[in-house]
Amino acid sequence: MTAGSTVTTVERLGEHVGQTVTLRGWIYNRTSKGKLHFVRLRDGTGIAQCVVFKGGVSEELFEAVGAAGQESSLVLTGEVKADARAPGGFELGVSDGRVLQAVQDYPITPKEHGTDFLLSRRHLWLRSKRQWAILRIRDAIITAIRGFFDERGFVCIDSPIFTPAACEGTSTLFEVDYFGDTAFLTQSGQLYAEASAMAFGKVYTFGPTFRAEKSKTRRHLTEFWMIEPEMAFADLADVMDLAEDMICHIVQQVLERRKPELEVLERDSSKLECIQKPFPRMTYAAAGEILAAHPDSKFVAGEDFGAPDETILSELHDRPVMITNYPAEVKSFYMKRSEDGATALCVDMIAPEGVGEIIGGSQREDDYETLLARIEAQDLPREHFEWYLDLRRYGSVPHAGYGLGLERTVGWICGVEHVRETSPFPRMMTRIEP
Amino acid sequence: MTAGSTVTTVERLGEHVGQTVTLRGWIYNRTSKGKLHFVRLRDGTGIAQCVVFKGGVSEELFEAVGAAGQESSLVLTGEVKADARAPGGFELGVSDGRVLQAVQDYPITPKEHGTDFLLSRRHLWLRSKRQWAILRIRDAIITAIRGFFDERGFVCIDSPIFTPAACEGTSTLFEVDYFGDTAFLTQSGQLYAEASAMAFGKVYTFGPTFRAEKSKTRRHLTEFWMIEPEMAFADLADVMDLAEDMICHIVQQVLERRKPELEVLERDSSKLECIQKPFPRMTYAAAGEILAAHPDSKFVAGEDFGAPDETILSELHDRPVMITNYPAEVKSFYMKRSEDGATALCVDMIAPEGVGEIIGGSQREDDYETLLARIEAQDLPREHFEWYLDLRRYGSVPHAGYGLGLERTVGWICGVEHVRETSPFPRMMTRIEP
Repeated sequence: MTAGSTVTTVERLGEHVGQTVTLRGWIYNRTSKGKLHFVRLRDGTGIAQCVVFKGGVSEELFEAVGAAGQESSLVLTGEVKADARAPGGFELGVSDGRVLQAVQDYPITPKEHGTDFLLSRRHLWLRSKRQWAILRIRDAIITAIRGFFDERGFVCIDSPIFTPAACEGTSTLFEVDYFGDTAFLTQSGQLYAEASAMAFGKVYTFGPTFRAEKSKTRRHLTEFWMIEPEMAFADLADVMDLAEDMICHIVQQVLERRKPELEVLERDSSKLECIQKPFPRMTYAAAGEILAAHPDSKFVAGEDFGAPDETILSELHDRPVMITNYPAEVKSFYMKRSEDGATALCVDMIAPEGVGEIIGGSQREDDYETLLARIEAQDLPREHFEWYLDLRRYGSVPHAGYGLGLERTVGWICGVEHVRETSPFPRMMTRIEP
Repeated sequence: MTAGSTVTTVERLGEHVGQTVTLRGWIYNRTSKGKLHFVRLRDGTGIAQCVVFKGGVSEELFEAVGAAGQESSLVLTGEVKADARAPGGFELGVSDGRVLQAVQDYPITPKEHGTDFLLSRRHLWLRSKRQWAILRIRDAIITAIRGFFDERGFVCIDSPIFTPAACEGTSTLFEVDYFGDTAFLTQSGQLYAEASAMAFGKVYTFGPTFRAEKSKTRRHLTEFWMIEPEMAFADLADVMDLAEDMICHIVQQVLERRKPELEVLERDSSKLECIQKPFPRMTYAAAGEILAAHPDSKFVAGEDFGAPDETILSELHDRPVMITNYPAEVKSFYMKRSEDGATALCVDMIAPEGVGEIIGGSQREDDYETLLARIEAQDLPREHFEWYLDLRRYGSVPHAGYGLGLERTVGWICGVEHVRETSPFPRMMTRIEP
């Protein structure tokens, strides 16, 4: 590399047109024609075409580049030229450089590979353009979510991963040997978020959660990240407004910050540009009528929606739809009921394009006696919920919150079918490697 | 509450002087004198004095407030008055309101309680002023860290929690029953961060990590959060510059955003204002000479520093000190060695005021043969490291990173002795409840 040339990145090439700069990265692919090597160099921020002309560099460098296969690491110095034909709009006319490691046998080639082959090489698969784009979008979504809550005065209060008891049933819990005792990995930070909301007013948790589901569908990971805001002095309507604002903010940020990545994914941006307030809102009863009239639905009134029902509802609108007031019996003990007791004051947000549920939220039961009666009716181990009952003993207030599944949200925004591509190192029933 | 009055929060009272607003919260404490109740109301954003005068409100409200004990929940409406004597500088002259739940027997009173009593009531203890302040500062630190990396183009790539093998030894690993197999809970995301850096250039992980240490010291939790940045094309010097900039940014943000909380903790802000670049840097050899000459040190040349040694080094400076080039034998297999092979290209950052290590980082071994030889020499299970070796097979580049322990950092900045107060729901060897 030429002494004194500025080291820059692919995404900032446009700031250096006419200047000599240095890029550092890996060969994404290379085409050689006689006296020319066209190197598409990736550096983590993007891919840039670098032109190595036999007469323009040392004999040694020209040969080294010509012998370097996919994923060889190298440093290239040259002049930045604006060129509308080049991917990204700029290219590097190489004058100097060095191959750090020449690679010949990189296992992931441009040909098609099976998913299992790729998942076993996830540490390398991440370098592929599509995976790179998905996880850069995931990053922007994480940043958008945290920014959204921080700007609105929510305090990040991490809920614990080790828990002594199940929030909802034990069949899908992972057990840990905790110094000879048994602990469980958390499935949701909600109960802890409720305690925190009584101390901080508005809080959110953002961490990994775990579900030992013997399920191999495209929607399931054993380890996934959840965002769970909780607000004191709030009701179901507040939760719906917040969820709507948050989703709009996330989508807006991705459109602003990750346009090249959406293009890599060939994601139809117009579908994302539709995601504007207000989102349609309907009750479970109204949604049930739609399903009852739909030829493909096996919906039974009074039961929860199945995945195919969610898909039908999802495809009715160009933006997420919020469905409220499910029958009390199909929803959790901690949800407040409507005045007649028939429905839960809850909301599920169903993302469009057939994606299905991404948010579940509710107003929480804030009456001590009512909550206790429900814990007892469901045979939950009361001793594990005494602390949770304390929140209704000592200064109970109306409160509400929701949970957003990060990976499903990434999948929806990226237009990616299977959640395994939305986690950097996905964990599934049959896979914990690499 | 008076219809139409603006609902606001304690921290925003200053924007409403002369206006009638509504606050919603809990009684932190109350003093009553004849026709006056002085309610210190906390709402999660702060504490405000609310004055309830017998002639100024309904008989019913006056009596209800007079009967409401600590942590009763209530809504109060009144005029905001600037009053230099009031805590926070403003008070509310109450004209209307409602007690939502009157509490008589809140278990955490202003008197002293034992730590075990308080930890068993962590869900309530969070409401105490000191815990509230610590965790609001923790929140600001999290936001500062994420903002720091996001602004510098680092991509957040979450490392997995379930791992198939240990990074460094198995004795302190938590085991999970993973569908009949055994998985371990991660102790560090570093190896995964290295893989991600080869795909994204600059990355960071930010998640919980686990250590099954049979240790009950003030510095140990079984579950704690780590931030681990990793950069491709970087060396030890780059890591030191980054760590220094990050720590300065964190401290600056806390000073800007959490002044009232630092005051609650009676934290000497001048100690934090000292945290400016450059931080002193010295080698292990130089630090060893200081310790050898120190009467209280039991330091043995060639061995790692003990906690008392870190305390001595920590107290020498008014800002963090960075110690590099420890003997190769006491450091991990993945660290690159100096040219003579004697020392590791590593750095520990020791926080001042006796706090000890908060950051450990290094340049990573990037040579395949050298790394393989070390894995074999240390009898590590090679099959679990094949994927990690791939990073040196396919386009290896110099790279470096570090890990920051969140809870220790919070403890240092807050001036809190024991890390158990720096986690919302701390997990220790003898405690996983509530």
